[in-house]
Amino acid sequence: MRPICFISDYGLTGDLVGSCKGVMASIAPQAHLVDITHSVPEFDVIRGAEILRHNTQYMPTNAVYVAVVDPGPKIERRALAAEAHSGAYLVGPDNGLLLPAAEELGGVVRAVHLTNQRYHVEPVSDNFQGRDIFSPVAAYLAAGADFKDLGEEVAPASMASIDFPRAHREPDGGLVAQIIDIDRFGNARLSAMQKDLNLQYGAPLQVKVDDDVMDARYVQSFGTSQVGDLVLVPDSHWRLSLAVNKGNAARALLLAVGNQVRIEPSEEPPPI
Amino acid sequence: MRPICFISDYGLTGDLVGSCKGVMASIAPQAHLVDITHSVPEFDVIRGAEILRHNTQYMPTNAVYVAVVDPGPKIERRALAAEAHSGAYLVGPDNGLLLPAAEELGGVVRAVHLTNQRYHVEPVSDNFQGRDIFSPVAAYLAAGADFKDLGEEVAPASMASIDFPRAHREPDGGLVAQIIDIDRFGNARLSAMQKDLNLQYGAPLQVKVDDDVMDARYVQSFGTSQVGDLVLVPDSHWRLSLAVNKGNAARALLLAVGNQVRIEPSEEPPPI
Amino acid sequence: MRPICFISDYGLTGDLVGSCKGVMASIAPQAHLVDITHSVPEFDVIRGAEILRHNTQYMPTNAVYVAVVDPGPKIERRALAAEAHSGAYLVGPDNGLLLPAAEELGGVVRAVHLTNQRYHVEPVSDNFQGRDIFSPVAAYLAAGADFKDLGEEVAPASMASIDFPRAHREPDGGLVAQIIDIDRFGNARLSAMQKDLNLQYGAPLQVKVDDDVMDARYVQSFGTSQVGDLVLVPDSHWRLSLAVNKGNAARALLLAVGNQVRIEPSEEPPPI
Repeated sequence: MRPICFISDYGLTGDLVGSCKGVMASIAPQAHLVDITHSVPEFDVIRGAEILRHNTQYMPTNAVYVAVVDPGPKIERRALAAEAHSGAYLVGPDNGLLLPAAEELGGVVRAVHLTNQRYHVEPVSDNFQGRDIFSPVAAYLAAGADFKDLGEEVAPASMASIDFPRAHREPDGGLVAQIIDIDRFGNARLSAMQKDLNLQYGAPLQVKVDDDVMDARYVQSFGTSQVGDLVLVPDSHWRLSLAVNKGNAARALLLAVGNQVRIEPSEEPPPI
Repeated sequence: MRPICFISDYGLTGDLVGSCKGVMASIAPQAHLVDITHSVPEFDVIRGAEILRHNTQYMPTNAVYVAVVDPGPKIERRALAAEAHSGAYLVGPDNGLLLPAAEELGGVVRAVHLTNQRYHVEPVSDNFQGRDIFSPVAAYLAAGADFKDLGEEVAPASMASIDFPRAHREPDGGLVAQIIDIDRFGNARLSAMQKDLNLQYGAPLQVKVDDDVMDARYVQSFGTSQVGDLVLVPDSHWRLSLAVNKGNAARALLLAVGNQVRIEPSEEPPPI
Repeated sequence: MRPICFISDYGLTGDLVGSCKGVMASIAPQAHLVDITHSVPEFDVIRGAEILRHNTQYMPTNAVYVAVVDPGPKIERRALAAEAHSGAYLVGPDNGLLLPAAEELGGVVRAVHLTNQRYHVEPVSDNFQGRDIFSPVAAYLAAGADFKDLGEEVAPASMASIDFPRAHREPDGGLVAQIIDIDRFGNARLSAMQKDLNLQYGAPLQVKVDDDVMDARYVQSFGTSQVGDLVLVPDSHWRLSLAVNKGNAARALLLAVGNQVRIEPSEEPPPI
C-alpha cells in the first residue's frame, strides 16, 4: 500500500487534520501517513507550493500527496488528482499548489477532475473538501484505486500554475531576492540560489534588508562562523539563507517573509 | 488489529502525548494511531466531548477511542471503558467525556470500571492516568484483549452525562445560541443547527453578538459570498458558523467561545 | 521491524520534522514512528536529555531512538549511534543528549561514529544533519542494518556527558532544588526526588521561590487537596512538582525554568 504524505494550512489547534486522518484510516487502514506540515500560513498557496515541492525529494517515491491550501471559492476551481512521471500521485485543489511539486517529480503524466462521488465522503461539505474529497481520494489511491475511475480526464496543461518569487542581479552586481520563509530557528530562506551569488566561501558581504545595511559573511556552514555572526549560508537545496550562528536572525534583525534583500560583495572584511 | 483514535487536552508542547504513544506502541505495535486532536482547551470536558462526538463519524468503525480531558480529582470519578453498539470501544474518565460519542455510535452496550491492574502501567501515577491506565487499556483492546477482563462491569446508565450548550428561539423569532468553538480560520461554530434557523440561502440577517449588531447573510458556502463578507454558513454537520469570507471572523469581530449570538432575519438587504 | 522514537527541538511550525519523517518512511516504510516531542526548547541539550531519559521507560524495548537537539558547530562533535544494554539503539549528536538515556537503558554496549556515507542522504547538508544523517541511520537500523557497518567503532566512555541540575539539603534541613520543566498545565517539575524530602503526605510546607515565600502542602495527589491549593506532589517518577489544584501554578506564581526553589517543613498548618 502506498504511503500518504499530507500537507495543509489546517494547523494543529483543532480537529481539521484529525478528521482527515480518520477518513483516510477508515479507507486505507494500512497506509503509512507522513505529515509534511500543517502549518502552512493560512490560504498562502505560494508558501504551500514551495514547501510541497521542496519536500518531494525526501518523501517515498510511491507517495500519494494530499495537499490542501485552498483560499478560493470551491465552485471556481477544480478538485484534481495528478499522476507524476515519478509514479507519485498528487491530490488537491487546482489553484497552483500541486503543479510545482508535480514538475519536480518529472511532470504530469495525466490528471483527472475528481467528479466521481463514489470516492467522496457524502454529503460533501462545500467548506471542507479536504476531509470530504481530497482525503478519501488520496486514501483510495493509496489502497490501489484505479486513477481513471476518479473522474473525467483533463489536460495536464490546463492545471493552474503560480509564480514563485525570484531573484535578479542588478547592473552593479548586487543580487536582489525576497525572504520566502523563516524557520523555527529564525533563519530566513531567500528566493535566490547559491549559483545566483557566484562567490567563494568566506567572502565578506553587505546585506541590505529594506533600508537597513548590515555586514555579513558568506559561509558553507555555521561551523565556520562565530557565535552571533550574521551569515549567508546555502541550505541543503543550495538555496541561500540569512542566519545568525546560534541566534535568531529573524528576531534580531526584524526579518519577515516578503522583505526584499539585496546582497553585494563587500570591499572590506567586516570586523570580527 | 483495531486502530486507536486519541483525543486529549495534553497539548503538543511537552511529552505527555509522546509518553502515552510510547505505552501504546509497546503493547500494540501494529495498531494504527489517529490523533483526533490534543488541543482541547485544558480541563474543558464539554468542548472535548463535543469534538469527540463530532469526529466519530469520520473515524474507522472498529476504532478504540482513548479520550483524556480530566479536571477532577481521580478518586472521585471512575476510569471506564465502554463498548458502543457500533462495535467501537471508548476508554477514558467517567466525567461526561465519553457518553455523547457513545450515543452517536449507537449507545453503550456494556461498560467496565477499569480495576484490573494487569492492564495498567505500574505504578499508576495519580496524576497521569492517561499514560498509566487509559493508554495501556486502549492498546490492549486494540490488540484483542477481552473487554470483560478489564474490570468490574457497571451499568451503562450509571455513566456520567453532560449538558451541551443549546439554542432557543425567542418569542419575536430571533434565534439565540452560543459560540462553542472557534477554528484556526476564525470561524465561530454555534450551538445552533441549520434546522433551527429555517431560512432560505441568500437571506439577509442581523447578527447580535453580546451588544454589537452586524449585518450578515445566510449562505450555503463561501463561494457564494464576496471576500470580506460576514456570513452565516452551515458546516458539514449542518451546524451554523459565523465566518468572514477569506477573513478571520473571530479576530475581526472579537468573538470568543461562550459569547451569546442572536440571529434574526433582516428587513433590508445589507449593503454589498 | 523496530519502532522509531523521535525527539527534537524542531518544533511543528515548519517542515523540518516532516522532511525527516519522509526520509525515514522512504527507507523503513513499515516502521512505526512515535513522536516523543518536537518541542524541546531550541538548542537546550539538558532539557532534551532529561525528556529523552524520562521517556525511555515508556517506549518499546526494541526502539531506535533518534534525538536531535544540536546547537554546536557540526565539525566539533561526532554524529553517533549507540547500542544500549536493553537492546535499544540511540542515534544523534555526541553532545550529551544521548548518554543519560543510554544509561537509563542499562548503559552503552557499543557505539559507532556515523562515517559510512552509504547510510546518509547525499549530499549531506551541514545545517540539517537530522534529516541527512540521523534520520536515515535510524531508519536503516529499524530495517535491520548491521550496526557495525554504520561507521568506525568508538569507545563508549568517549561519549559526551552532561550535568543535570541537582538538589541539595541545607544545614537547617531546607531542600534546595531547581525548576527543570513546566508542563502545559503549569506544573513545575523540580530537580528533587520524593526521597530527598523525607516527609509524610499531608505535611505543611513553606516554599520559597527566589525571594517569595508561600505556604503549601505535601500531598500524594491532587485528589487530596482543595481547588486552588498550592501543593508539592510527586509525579509518576517520584520527582517533586509544584502545582495548583485545577489551576496553573507557573502562571499564578510566575514560575520559570531555572528558578531556585527552597522547601522546608512548616511549623503551623497553612490556613485552608
